[in-house]
Amino acid sequence: MTYTLVLLRHGESEWNAKNLFTGWVDVPLNDKGRAEGQHAGELLRDEGVLPDVVHTSLLRRAINTAAMALDVADRHWIPVRRSWRLNERHYGALQGKNKKETLDAYGEEQFMLWRRSFDVPPPPIEDDSEWSQAGLPQYADLGDEMPRTECLADVIERFLPYWESDIVPDLRAGRTVLVAAHGNSLRALVKHLDGISDEDIAGLNIPTGMPLVYELDDDLRPTVPGGRYLDPEAAAEAAAAVANQGR
Amino acid sequence: MTYTLVLLRHGESEWNAKNLFTGWVDVPLNDKGRAEGQHAGELLRDEGVLPDVVHTSLLRRAINTAAMALDVADRHWIPVRRSWRLNERHYGALQGKNKKETLDAYGEEQFMLWRRSFDVPPPPIEDDSEWSQAGLPQYADLGDEMPRTECLADVIERFLPYWESDIVPDLRAGRTVLVAAHGNSLRALVKHLDGISDEDIAGLNIPTGMPLVYELDDDLRPTVPGGRYLDPEAAAEAAAAVANQGR
Repeated sequence: MTYTLVLLRHGESEWNAKNLFTGWVDVPLNDKGRAEGQHAGELLRDEGVLPDVVHTSLLRRAINTAAMALDVADRHWIPVRRSWRLNERHYGALQGKNKKETLDAYGEEQFMLWRRSFDVPPPPIEDDSEWSQAGLPQYADLGDEMPRTECLADVIERFLPYWESDIVPDLRAGRTVLVAAHGNSLRALVKHLDGISDEDIAGLNIPTGMPLVYELDDDLRPTVPGGRYLDPEAAAEAAAAVANQGR
Repeated sequence: MTYTLVLLRHGESEWNAKNLFTGWVDVPLNDKGRAEGQHAGELLRDEGVLPDVVHTSLLRRAINTAAMALDVADRHWIPVRRSWRLNERHYGALQGKNKKETLDAYGEEQFMLWRRSFDVPPPPIEDDSEWSQAGLPQYADLGDEMPRTECLADVIERFLPYWESDIVPDLRAGRTVLVAAHGNSLRALVKHLDGISDEDIAGLNIPTGMPLVYELDDDLRPTVPGGRYLDPEAAAEAAAAVANQGR
């Protein structure tokens, strides 16, 4: 008996394409992102990987990618669960800033520290910034937990409780679970599943719109480390492209 | 203290436009239907009627209308609940048939009996019909409750338990509830709310894509009978057009 978990990073958003730090800014998918959502659904359908329940972040790029993929795979009717704990890493004061300009302004070392270090968050965002989410109704219940910036370690800390409380019970019930989320919330999950070290996780990139399937054993450990992309060649190409962002 | 309930019939589907009986056949929205979903969201947003939770049927035309409207209104992140009990009336052996051809073949009297009588269902559909939903995974749990045809009385009988068990508790918790469903499941609800007789409900048509807002008192009775369309003129025009279908 194994459990089936499918990870799906949202398709390209309007800000991915513009090379801006997005984080919790709730930007829509662009045409390419919508096509990726459709294609993800075709892969799920054609491979017969059919989710019984979907977990999404509260951000529309993940919500709409999941909705499109599930519609194509004829699974639009499954139960939906959402949590801010699946949101992208909060990028602090970098939200809304151009990645290339940030690289030029702060230099390679600081830039890579903010992007890929495990435990160094960017400077916090001010609540009155146009790119702050303070005061939005979807985060009204968070209180002191509302982040103003996050490093990957922070994402893990707020994601893992939801993994245990909400996702694992769906898996244990025998459901094929789709998690539709973001580059960094999915890196947090993959780090946990595959037991990747704080150092090595820096080199792991998850491409947009490519279903990544994990079969988990009874201890919820992957039967195949790293899981299996439904379209492995496209995934390898896309991961390489992500690694070169800001260049 | 009043409770706010918003009803939304899905936008036009590919089969509405072709004048076919649809029922439980899971046809997609067409371009007009998607535009209606967007416009419904603009009305919700502009009128400040902001759902805290959405209930949908298991049919993609309702699911996707709700998703588009909520995205436009910036409420894409709210909790989602779905049930087959919000599905359109099962049209039995008429599913997939042209309304005009059915009218010509069976005559005005029989046609109107099937379309608008309270308690006369069409002939049941065969499980091996191409338009049957027997065997679909989303209905696997229904067992003996799986309909093969329904009249409006049948829709009321399977809808009201869900109203009491799932929608009323959301209202009582103070949530603004959006119900995204179908012509006949919403007629069942309106009949219940407004206390419309079995005879008079025949004359009530609910237009596609027009948010209908009910404020309910502590006994869950409408403070304004019939509720309030956010775009009343367009709703009146559209309801008249529905009444003339098949002509």
